[in-house]
Amino acid sequence: MGDLCLPNGNGVNGRSHVGGDVQRKSCWYEEEIEENLRWCFALKSILHTGATRYQDIQLLDTKPFGKALVIDGKLQSAEIDEFIYHESLVHPALLHHSNPRSIFIMGGGEGSTAREILRHRTVEKVVMCDIDEEVVEFCKSYLAVNTEAFADPKLEVIINDARAELQSREDQFDVIIGDLADPIEGGPCYQLYTKSFYESIVKPKLNQETGIFVTQAGPAGIFSHTEVFSCIYNTLKQVFKYVVPYSAHVPSYADTWGWVMASDSPFDLTAEALDLRMNQRIRGESRYLDGATFSSSSTLSKAVRNTLENETHVYTDEAARFIYGYNCAYKHA
Amino acid sequence: MGDLCLPNGNGVNGRSHVGGDVQRKSCWYEEEIEENLRWCFALKSILHTGATRYQDIQLLDTKPFGKALVIDGKLQSAEIDEFIYHESLVHPALLHHSNPRSIFIMGGGEGSTAREILRHRTVEKVVMCDIDEEVVEFCKSYLAVNTEAFADPKLEVIINDARAELQSREDQFDVIIGDLADPIEGGPCYQLYTKSFYESIVKPKLNQETGIFVTQAGPAGIFSHTEVFSCIYNTLKQVFKYVVPYSAHVPSYADTWGWVMASDSPFDLTAEALDLRMNQRIRGESRYLDGATFSSSSTLSKAVRNTLENETHVYTDEAARFIYGYNCAYKHA
Amino acid sequence: MGDLCLPNGNGVNGRSHVGGDVQRKSCWYEEEIEENLRWCFALKSILHTGATRYQDIQLLDTKPFGKALVIDGKLQSAEIDEFIYHESLVHPALLHHSNPRSIFIMGGGEGSTAREILRHRTVEKVVMCDIDEEVVEFCKSYLAVNTEAFADPKLEVIINDARAELQSREDQFDVIIGDLADPIEGGPCYQLYTKSFYESIVKPKLNQETGIFVTQAGPAGIFSHTEVFSCIYNTLKQVFKYVVPYSAHVPSYADTWGWVMASDSPFDLTAEALDLRMNQRIRGESRYLDGATFSSSSTLSKAVRNTLENETHVYTDEAARFIYGYNCAYKHA
Amino acid sequence: MGDLCLPNGNGVNGRSHVGGDVQRKSCWYEEEIEENLRWCFALKSILHTGATRYQDIQLLDTKPFGKALVIDGKLQSAEIDEFIYHESLVHPALLHHSNPRSIFIMGGGEGSTAREILRHRTVEKVVMCDIDEEVVEFCKSYLAVNTEAFADPKLEVIINDARAELQSREDQFDVIIGDLADPIEGGPCYQLYTKSFYESIVKPKLNQETGIFVTQAGPAGIFSHTEVFSCIYNTLKQVFKYVVPYSAHVPSYADTWGWVMASDSPFDLTAEALDLRMNQRIRGESRYLDGATFSSSSTLSKAVRNTLENETHVYTDEAARFIYGYNCAYKHA
Repeated sequence: MGDLCLPNGNGVNGRSHVGGDVQRKSCWYEEEIEENLRWCFALKSILHTGATRYQDIQLLDTKPFGKALVIDGKLQSAEIDEFIYHESLVHPALLHHSNPRSIFIMGGGEGSTAREILRHRTVEKVVMCDIDEEVVEFCKSYLAVNTEAFADPKLEVIINDARAELQSREDQFDVIIGDLADPIEGGPCYQLYTKSFYESIVKPKLNQETGIFVTQAGPAGIFSHTEVFSCIYNTLKQVFKYVVPYSAHVPSYADTWGWVMASDSPFDLTAEALDLRMNQRIRGESRYLDGATFSSSSTLSKAVRNTLENETHVYTDEAARFIYGYNCAYKHA
Repeated sequence: MGDLCLPNGNGVNGRSHVGGDVQRKSCWYEEEIEENLRWCFALKSILHTGATRYQDIQLLDTKPFGKALVIDGKLQSAEIDEFIYHESLVHPALLHHSNPRSIFIMGGGEGSTAREILRHRTVEKVVMCDIDEEVVEFCKSYLAVNTEAFADPKLEVIINDARAELQSREDQFDVIIGDLADPIEGGPCYQLYTKSFYESIVKPKLNQETGIFVTQAGPAGIFSHTEVFSCIYNTLKQVFKYVVPYSAHVPSYADTWGWVMASDSPFDLTAEALDLRMNQRIRGESRYLDGATFSSSSTLSKAVRNTLENETHVYTDEAARFIYGYNCAYKHA
Repeated sequence: MGDLCLPNGNGVNGRSHVGGDVQRKSCWYEEEIEENLRWCFALKSILHTGATRYQDIQLLDTKPFGKALVIDGKLQSAEIDEFIYHESLVHPALLHHSNPRSIFIMGGGEGSTAREILRHRTVEKVVMCDIDEEVVEFCKSYLAVNTEAFADPKLEVIINDARAELQSREDQFDVIIGDLADPIEGGPCYQLYTKSFYESIVKPKLNQETGIFVTQAGPAGIFSHTEVFSCIYNTLKQVFKYVVPYSAHVPSYADTWGWVMASDSPFDLTAEALDLRMNQRIRGESRYLDGATFSSSSTLSKAVRNTLENETHVYTDEAARFIYGYNCAYKHA
Repeated sequence: MGDLCLPNGNGVNGRSHVGGDVQRKSCWYEEEIEENLRWCFALKSILHTGATRYQDIQLLDTKPFGKALVIDGKLQSAEIDEFIYHESLVHPALLHHSNPRSIFIMGGGEGSTAREILRHRTVEKVVMCDIDEEVVEFCKSYLAVNTEAFADPKLEVIINDARAELQSREDQFDVIIGDLADPIEGGPCYQLYTKSFYESIVKPKLNQETGIFVTQAGPAGIFSHTEVFSCIYNTLKQVFKYVVPYSAHVPSYADTWGWVMASDSPFDLTAEALDLRMNQRIRGESRYLDGATFSSSSTLSKAVRNTLENETHVYTDEAARFIYGYNCAYKHA
């Protein structure tokens, strides 16, 4: 008889009066995708919370998307689908180059972009230039999936502003990759998306005509592509002869994401040729990308295509002046 | 010029396009107070998640209420206001007894009830009987505030069903304290709130007429007091000559909570007498309770008082039969 | 056979792939009680959303608390428990007056304060002075529970700033009631809680020594009473000889709420005398208040009592100067 | 001076103590995309809530997605992006048919599928067969965007189970469209996705070899496509010679969605040919679909393609037996 109280215990103390109605999904990560839209993941644990000199950083373990890196309250990368973002950012550009040996990453401190680059057999040197040393150290310590990449002797990690670094270097690169925050006016990275930056800093550091520049280009969904995707595309069109926008749905972002690839040489590989190069050049199997997938990704839907064709806005340094003052104040603080 | 990208970094990777709009309150604990009512605390961290043989257990670090112990999805105890619950549960009963030396706790594995009891200079022996060994061990390890209590040689911790334990013991107690889950029909602790349990198990284990029984008695708010508070009161009235219900608002519970104290000797201390005894008998300062506070707590508001006076329901073993079968199934599973 | 698809329909269109897992609690009202604490009610419907010249206003139909009036994102009044707030605000002051005939309400546009006042048989005139005509009209139209009060010929509704109105009037009142937003520095109502306002505007408008002033006094919970409750109490102590603070848990506010009553005549009714006056003077039955309830409400718990006794801060016009500029800007905008 | 209290009013009653911190996003619609994943839209209003004989139904006005039809707690259709779902469901099948004159819709009570069909100049007859009359009536009344379609004399609305209706009819159709809930085992529509249903009911009602069947096919994201999309594809492959799966990201669904088109005639239009037919046959401009978009949509990404190629599961009537009993019970209840 005394055993009657076993299940759920007669224990601890008095307050669990709902009884058997166990509710396990009690901890949540919540992100405001936009002001009126929230995206919430059940949490297993909060692995790390901290603040670097530049940003707040969290490493969460979420139920739907695995480990998730959150910076300043925005999900950057989730364990189960970051491969979509990083394969899309890296492989199309490297595969369209005939022999990519040297690569420069603007940003990329998470390490996943370097990881994908280092899968390419042709690559001899990768320079990753991120402003935030603590984030780089954090990711090196916590993201097991990139441990090997961070330890690769071909990778040189530089802590610096990407613009300053590129400007001061003598060497050129086969591919330059922009893995930076979006070009919000007044935001930290606006100046790394302007026509003059592309013209006077990026292009001169690409090896001749065959060099390729690729950048993440913000949300590219049927509504969200007007925020920055179309302008990045149009700005690059002012500077390079050939520009290819493409996109993919990334579930953990709750949106379709965009990238833009640019060069003065044409991008004319068929899906089959792309598949062939993937087999020849890339170690291991890619989970997201192949020739057909890229064909589909780079064929934008009607509404997005129309916006891009009709976009007239070009990012210029005008807005950046405002940022200059902001940073002055910042530096003296 | 290159420094322009410093704030917020041009770092990690591309997705923080809202820029300066830092959102730090991204992790939340959410509890369903009732089906249509939620209570959500911003989270600092999830200190521990686990499951014992009987229940799920979490130790959270919350922003509004500090460390919080959550069992089966219900907040049990929050660092910043558990003193209200535990002082209210323990001190009125012990103070109304002329010389409380031996105390029995049904449940109480968290350790806070024992902690409050052990502050009484008269107390020589405390028996805490909780069914869930892992919860007791967990609280012993994690709840620093109770470390001293758990180490006190006057405390004997027994892992057993409280009913079985009381039934089998030979000794009697000056005060018996019920720190158990609410008497939901079919719930684990229903049988520890019935008239026959009080009559045949609890009362015989109280020392003579002066012994006092006190139990937590569920929510006691202006609407919620009808759930179990009034029935616990009425059931105890069938068994003891003197019964005193009282209540207090516990912020982390988002409700007013109730307790009921019962004896065959009258409770007739004035607020001043209570204050005097507190000073004489209790080590350290109490944060919630004193004589005036107890006067206020034990003067229920009109609506609650009316329900209690008119309550006719008595908890009996009828419902418990159903639980018996449930437990059989459970034990053979 | 064709009927096999009946339940849940094979209907409308394709997307309800979770099947039977009906989820009805899909619409929620969410309030930030404080920055790290949310209180969420399942919604039945949104009855009205609008903006007046001064504030945003919503009338919601919630599952746990019935119809709820929300102003600027804060719950003002919920159908099922507004009686606690309004009975507590009105009755103690009127009952402690020997013959309250004329009453002035600062704010109170919802109408519930007037409704409670008009239940007193002694009352001959009620002046309600609220700044926001649209809110008054809104409540008149939507809050059926106050329809009778708004139609009562004893009620005079004036649209004006309460300070200006009191200052310019010739008449005096037996009771003046403050039903205003809390005295946040820089907030709209700060100036209606200062020592000089009480001294030079309120007190002269009270009938002789027997006049009583009562005001809502913000949250009065074990932690929240330090926000404004203790200062309002202390400020009134500088101006009146007798000051009585009291509090009650209001479930829909997720907190204990406070009021302060002040006069130059003593408040010395027993619980029994209060009950007697309630029976003699008030039409209908009160749901929350009676003599014993007021005894309990006006006996604050230890921590709150200690803060009030030791409070040294007094609200003065200093802060208000800042508000003056603010309002200037506002008026010229 | 008296005007100092103007902004935000000194009004209504006391509780808005956070002052200027106006919070307008207080009402939310919340959907569990899956158990650990929530998608929340700020709400403007709840236009309608009700229950038909078969399902719960809500019409909400949301800030991010406009008016939204929610059935049994799942978003069916949102004003701003339903065109993606409905253009994708209707146009590829009708365009690949040489001369689609008669169309049968299984489900589709919302009316949007009919609306898109009726834009085709070739169409002479549309039969929409939905089980839930109240939903049809509801959508007819509330969804202004489909008013014209519901009034079109070419549209015949039949209230019946789609299976029973098809079985009992004598006529055949050029295109049959499945706009039904997903084939969850035990769910209401499982039997409308089985091999035997396609073989013995659907195929015989298609006009000869040129008839085309198309169905919505559940989520088709990089992870979610294994739920039902791949099985629907594989089941149709057992019955039809040519089967084309395709997908599109629908923002309000927080996922990529899938459709499958099947026929015994090949689908061999180029993007250009598709564009030409759209121009010739469809009234008005399509917002989502054109030839290039369909090329992209029907080129699935690597992981999804691989799953589809390797899928071995076929939906059969086995599971349906269980449903039969379920419905019997239902009908006698």
